[in-house]
Parts: sequence; structure tokens; C-alpha cells
Amino acid sequence: MTRPARPGRDAFATFRPIQTRWADNDVYRHVNNVVYYGYFDTAVNGWLIEKDLLVPGESPVYGIVVETGCTFFESVAFPQALEAGIAVARLGETSVTYAIGIFRAGGALACAAGRFTHVYVDGATQRPTRIPEPVRAALEGLAVP
Amino acid sequence: MTRPARPGRDAFATFRPIQTRWADNDVYRHVNNVVYYGYFDTAVNGWLIEKDLLVPGESPVYGIVVETGCTFFESVAFPQALEAGIAVARLGETSVTYAIGIFRAGGALACAAGRFTHVYVDGATQRPTRIPEPVRAALEGLAVP
Amino acid sequence: MTRPARPGRDAFATFRPIQTRWADNDVYRHVNNVVYYGYFDTAVNGWLIEKDLLVPGESPVYGIVVETGCTFFESVAFPQALEAGIAVARLGETSVTYAIGIFRAGGALACAAGRFTHVYVDGATQRPTRIPEPVRAALEGLAVP
Amino acid sequence: MTRPARPGRDAFATFRPIQTRWADNDVYRHVNNVVYYGYFDTAVNGWLIEKDLLVPGESPVYGIVVETGCTFFESVAFPQALEAGIAVARLGETSVTYAIGIFRAGGALACAAGRFTHVYVDGATQRPTRIPEPVRAALEGLAVP
Repeated sequence: MTRPARPGRDAFATFRPIQTRWADNDVYRHVNNVVYYGYFDTAVNGWLIEKDLLVPGESPVYGIVVETGCTFFESVAFPQALEAGIAVARLGETSVTYAIGIFRAGGALACAAGRFTHVYVDGATQRPTRIPEPVRAALEGLAVP
Repeated sequence: MTRPARPGRDAFATFRPIQTRWADNDVYRHVNNVVYYGYFDTAVNGWLIEKDLLVPGESPVYGIVVETGCTFFESVAFPQALEAGIAVARLGETSVTYAIGIFRAGGALACAAGRFTHVYVDGATQRPTRIPEPVRAALEGLAVP
Repeated sequence: MTRPARPGRDAFATFRPIQTRWADNDVYRHVNNVVYYGYFDTAVNGWLIEKDLLVPGESPVYGIVVETGCTFFESVAFPQALEAGIAVARLGETSVTYAIGIFRAGGALACAAGRFTHVYVDGATQRPTRIPEPVRAALEGLAVP
Repeated sequence: MTRPARPGRDAFATFRPIQTRWADNDVYRHVNNVVYYGYFDTAVNGWLIEKDLLVPGESPVYGIVVETGCTFFESVAFPQALEAGIAVARLGETSVTYAIGIFRAGGALACAAGRFTHVYVDGATQRPTRIPEPVRAALEGLAVP
């Protein structure tokens, strides 16, 4: 079982705050593993929307998730404030894989680190299509530092 | 069908920021009605934890939810930043009912307004018990203005 | 604080199975109060879809939730199998209020009981509109027994 | 980007029903990628509880999630009935990796396929510990067919 190294802040190009919620904690009193993927979705889509690169339900071309994964290094719990670090690990013709790290706010090492792959599709046909140029240009700015 | 009036900010004693998430929106592209109750839970419990009045899973006496309700006035959608206004609408021997309003950040009128009743129980017996004095003192500070 | 009586099975016109999930339980090891509203949404919309009365995102006229509430009588926990009882408590020109009870599978008394009000709107304008006749006819079959 | 092959039913040793919910669908009207991980949690923990191998919050030794991943092949949507196929892909001294496939009920090919790794810990110390013998014996019965 090869386990990836625990990344630091320098592995990510931008950071976004993540607010925990009461229901994020499960019976073990820590944020449940599933919830981290919700942080990924929120961080990536929040960034795209803020950059005017996505209007959910209106953009004719958008990314659909085809693969995700996450390694968990240290537990966190509500009401801890968190941050999501984002970088682009791989940028293809029709797909982009983000590297994402979840940190305690201001923390040096990620508590969890994952990847999140979007394939861009034409909403009408659901067939893969080239990543739109404005999206690509912005993603290039998120290259792993 | 009597519908309560839409409250303004002056109906609440304190405000807490609420961050929306991608999954808060349902197929109608607005925050789903269920999610507001998660905002209530997070706002009330977050306030209690911050005031050192609750350590989930450790406090011997704590509130359990016996009744909630919400009226929806205007839809909101991720990534809109929100605020939860909190006040104490009724303070009894063993129970407290919070009034909660969900506002767009800085908004004048609540988009949704609800109530949330905690009965305090002894964790060991799950029987109702008097609200602990430090909790009561803090709750008195949240009286409807 | 007037607390409604705990309803039995005869207060509901139809029942639908509800499967609990790991994450339904919160740090107190019981199904969190918020989750019950998700059961309501799933039971009502599931029934409407099954009866061909709703195609989410396609039906030009559909119900939006304007008011909900729930009283909690007895806790349940994953992996307990549940049932949602449904009845129509009030049927107006443009709105319907469902009474919903959450039971342990086969249980005699509801563990939680709530209400759920849909106002029908024209999706294009989001203005209230008459409940479509096929929906009304089906709802009449759910009158409180 | 190497993409794993889409597994069939013969890749799994046991199947468990999964009921979808209204809120599983996101703005794209399909089950959101995050929700599949909730199906994984529910399927694995539900199986363990049913086999008397886990009492959440009481078992002194239990699995915590250290790594998960999922590849998405075909979208599904509420109210579609699903099944989760489970197999043990790797059984170590202190950890187990489950292979999980999410199928439409009765479907031949998985709509999503993932893995889910539990490391067993002593709840008191949170240090890794040997998988208890009864758990190991049961897991051996889930070997990839």
C-alpha cells in the first residue's frame, strides 16, 4: 500500500476558506470522510463561478466529475475553520485534474489530500469537448507551483 | 394558512456567517429546504461551542432537538454568502426555543425564518433537566431585542 | 409549549420505506433532526414521481416548499429501517400540506411527525398557480383517513 | 490518464440495496459524485453492523477511513433503486481495502466503482491495531470472487 506524502501549503496555488458544519461530524466526532469530497466540489466549483467560468445550469459546456480520490492524514472536527488548497495537477485537451488539500485554517500540512478530475462536456450531448479557452487560461494559472 | 411575517435584522440578537456549498442546491438550482435546518443546527451549536457552553460528546447535560420549523420567503443559491440571525424566543426551565433567520450576507429581510427547540437532558439518563446556569445566563443575552 | 400528540399509523394514507444511512447519525449516535426533513422530501417527491405527477426539471408546473415543521418523539439510528407515512392534511387551490410520520419499519407510533407545504408554481414565472388536475385527483386519494 | 475497466457483478462478493434520495441529485439532475462515497460508507458499515462486527461508538477496536477513491462510468438519478457490490480487494494485518461497485438495481455493469480502506485502530489510543479475528474471518468471505 503506497501512501502519498502529506503535502504542505507550497503544493497548492490558491486557497479558499471552508466552514465546517455540525453534521460534518459523524458518530466518531470527526468530520466524516465523505464530507471532504463535498469540500472539493465546493472549492473547485466556487472558484470557477467566482472567476465567471461557470454558471451552473446555464453554461453550455461544463465539467463533469469522472474520478476522485482522497487520502486522510489527520482528523478535524466542527467547528474547526478549514482551508482548501487548489492546484492543477494535469491539464489535458478535454479534462483537468485538480490536486486539493484540506488544511486547518493557517495549518502547515494538509489534513487530507485528494484529486478531482473534470471532463468537459457539451451539456446538450454529454459528449467530451475541448476545455473552453477562458477556462484553460485560468487553469494554467493554477499550475502546481 | 396563516403565514408569519418576514422578519428583519432587528428581530435577532446576534449574527453568524454561513457559507453555502455546491450540494446545498438541488435540481431546482436553489438551496434545498432541508439544508436550512442544517444552517440552524450549525448556527446554534456553533454559538454554544464558541461560548464554552457545549463540548459535543463530553458535556454531561446538553440540548436535544424536540421541535423545529421553517417558513421560506425567498430562495438563495450557492455560492451566495449567508448569515444566520439568532434570538431566544422562549426560555423555560428545561427548554429553549431559538428564533433563527437566514439572510443573504448584509440583507435586510430574512430569506427563511424558523424556530428550533432544545430540551436539556442528562446525557446518562436522557431525562429532561434544568438548563445549566451558565447556559441560561448566556441565553438571556439573546432575548429577542 | 403545546406539543402535538404522537400519531399512529391510522393517521396516514400510504407508507413508503426509508433506508437510513451511516451519515444520518450525528455525534449523539442518533439520526440528526435535519435528516428527517430529507426523508420528507424523498417520500413526497418519490411518491409524486412514481405516480407520474412530477418529472423534476421538466414538469412546467411543480410544487416549491414554503413551510415545513417537525416534532421529534423518539430517536432512531442507522441501520434501523424506517417508513414514512403520508397523508394530505390540507388541500387548497394552489397549495397542499402533507402530514408525514416517520416510523420504525412496522412501528405503531411515529418517531417524528411533521408537515410539508408545497405551493405550486409556474416554473417559468415562479408565480403560484392552480394545482394541476391529475395532481389534485391523486392528492384527494391521500386525504387523512 | 489510465482509467480502470468498468466492473460487472462477478467482481463483487455480496450486494446490498441502496435507496436514493431527493437530495442526492445536484443541479445537473444526477446523483452528485460525493453521494457515492456515502453509499460506500453505508454499504460497508451496514454490512459490518449486520454481521455483529461493529457497534458504532461501542466497539473498542474499529476501522477508520484512510483512503478512498471512485471512478464514475454512468450517471444515475433519484428515484432509481441501486445496489452496492462489495468485495475485499486487499486484506492486511491492520487494514482492509474494499472494492465497491454501485449498480442500478439488477444492472450488469457498475455505474461507479471505487475503493475504501479501513485501518483498524484502538479507539482509546487511535493507534493501528490488528484486525480482530471475527472481522478478519468475515472479510475472508468477501474475497474478490
